[in-house]
Amino acid sequence: MSILVVGSIALDTVETPFGQAEEALGGAAVYFSYAASFFNHVRLVGVVGKDFPDEHIELLEARDIDLAGLERAEGETFRWQGRYDYDLNEAHTLDTQLNVFESFEPKIPDSFKDSDFVFLANIQPGLQLRVARQVASPRVVACDTMNFWIEGAYDELRETLKAVDILIINDAEARELAREPSLVKGARKILNWGPDTLVVKRGEYGVLMFNRRSVFSAPAYPLEDVFDPTGAGDTFAGGFMGFLSTVEEVNENAIRQAIVFGSTLASFNVEDFSLGRMKSLTMEEILDRFSEFKQLAHFEEIEA
Amino acid sequence: MSILVVGSIALDTVETPFGQAEEALGGAAVYFSYAASFFNHVRLVGVVGKDFPDEHIELLEARDIDLAGLERAEGETFRWQGRYDYDLNEAHTLDTQLNVFESFEPKIPDSFKDSDFVFLANIQPGLQLRVARQVASPRVVACDTMNFWIEGAYDELRETLKAVDILIINDAEARELAREPSLVKGARKILNWGPDTLVVKRGEYGVLMFNRRSVFSAPAYPLEDVFDPTGAGDTFAGGFMGFLSTVEEVNENAIRQAIVFGSTLASFNVEDFSLGRMKSLTMEEILDRFSEFKQLAHFEEIEA
Repeated sequence: MSILVVGSIALDTVETPFGQAEEALGGAAVYFSYAASFFNHVRLVGVVGKDFPDEHIELLEARDIDLAGLERAEGETFRWQGRYDYDLNEAHTLDTQLNVFESFEPKIPDSFKDSDFVFLANIQPGLQLRVARQVASPRVVACDTMNFWIEGAYDELRETLKAVDILIINDAEARELAREPSLVKGARKILNWGPDTLVVKRGEYGVLMFNRRSVFSAPAYPLEDVFDPTGAGDTFAGGFMGFLSTVEEVNENAIRQAIVFGSTLASFNVEDFSLGRMKSLTMEEILDRFSEFKQLAHFEEIEA
Repeated sequence: MSILVVGSIALDTVETPFGQAEEALGGAAVYFSYAASFFNHVRLVGVVGKDFPDEHIELLEARDIDLAGLERAEGETFRWQGRYDYDLNEAHTLDTQLNVFESFEPKIPDSFKDSDFVFLANIQPGLQLRVARQVASPRVVACDTMNFWIEGAYDELRETLKAVDILIINDAEARELAREPSLVKGARKILNWGPDTLVVKRGEYGVLMFNRRSVFSAPAYPLEDVFDPTGAGDTFAGGFMGFLSTVEEVNENAIRQAIVFGSTLASFNVEDFSLGRMKSLTMEEILDRFSEFKQLAHFEEIEA
């Protein structure tokens, strides 16, 4: 089983109440790939500029991430600069320089076209759809998006959703996409537009999963401090798709466990800037924290 | 086992996006008592004015709530008027008339002094402490408070907390009380001030429970619409203490189940104005929804 991801690769400059990082490795496809690489082989499609440091390439290659789809374009790498205050749920964007990412047209290498699991990170919805269509027979197509596309490319996004099995967005995006203040009602709407499963990320409040039969509520790990939330959502998606790609049958049980693995990976990621914490992470730590999540959410049934 | 509650009794005028209620039965002690009465015998201490309608008295008596501690003072009953917008997490107070509640000095009837479970709803912290001291040997003292007392009677509140086993507050109150933006760090502080257990209510995001050994995260029930959130917190406390008063041993398992029962009762309460939904509620419905909470939070352990 193999996982294909298409999305941004960035150099992030981030300031939080706990410190700062300058021109650190980031971007949705990077966070996703790194997290998913704990579970399976990942294939990355993205673009960087001529200025992209070799050490970052080496870091990804060391995780056995296939970079055959990494384009090195003339120009500079995508840069994002942001600040978080004590309310770490909200990023304040200080500067965005799209650079080579502005005219990004994902090219899927032939060797990637047999991918089983596809994650369309947050890029223009029309591009997402073209990527999905280039993969021969994916088992699961998952996708992220953002307010910018919901507002500016609504019809295209609705078209893309028809090709998506699992939509992974945050609660504000879910409400805006459904044009509905009630998340439960909004979820029902969205589930009529293509996806079988809607995964709603709620930051420090955990994750809600909706499908046509049930709802699952996963807690967030109660961290003392969230050091840097950048990349948490994509790290979640990476852990989620990574685990899912290892199961025999993608059923509800597996999706629930995948959500907890996603939450587990995200809870580590926010403990340091960039991939700082992820670089030292082990599978043993991941499994231990998964068990902590189990204990965190546990209560006993009432005996009848 | 018997449960004593001291707190407000009110006539609420409430407006939400879904409708309105005028001079409806409300108040912390009322919501608490009604919810707890599904599990056990409740003793209520509070004050109303001469204008308090007999039908409300009859409603509480029909639930076997002991009103020996209900004072009927000269003057008018406490009135609260509020509005909720689409963000039903926040109440906008339009008018508060404390009336007879302003000079409320709780008098605990002798017949109440052997109570096993005590809930000090949100009143002046000094009064809470005097009530707690009048109960001979309570098994569990639980308490609520609000920003008004945290800001205006901090030292008294800290004194009261020394006599409290379980503090039940919302997340903003927990952060303000601990003077700490991190809930996890704040909880550790508060657990050094008296309570063994801190229960943090987070509205639509569920409940977090902290003690010295562990953390428990309970989901909220995913309702399509929250009709009227008034009284949800006190209904939670009523379901929580009500169930707790029925167990042989007040241990962590029981507290976790009690939190889910509290959440269950609260999820019904917000389905209608005032006690509208509670009046038709059955124990069968409560147990069914408890099981739904179990399913909502369920995921399987990973096989090693």
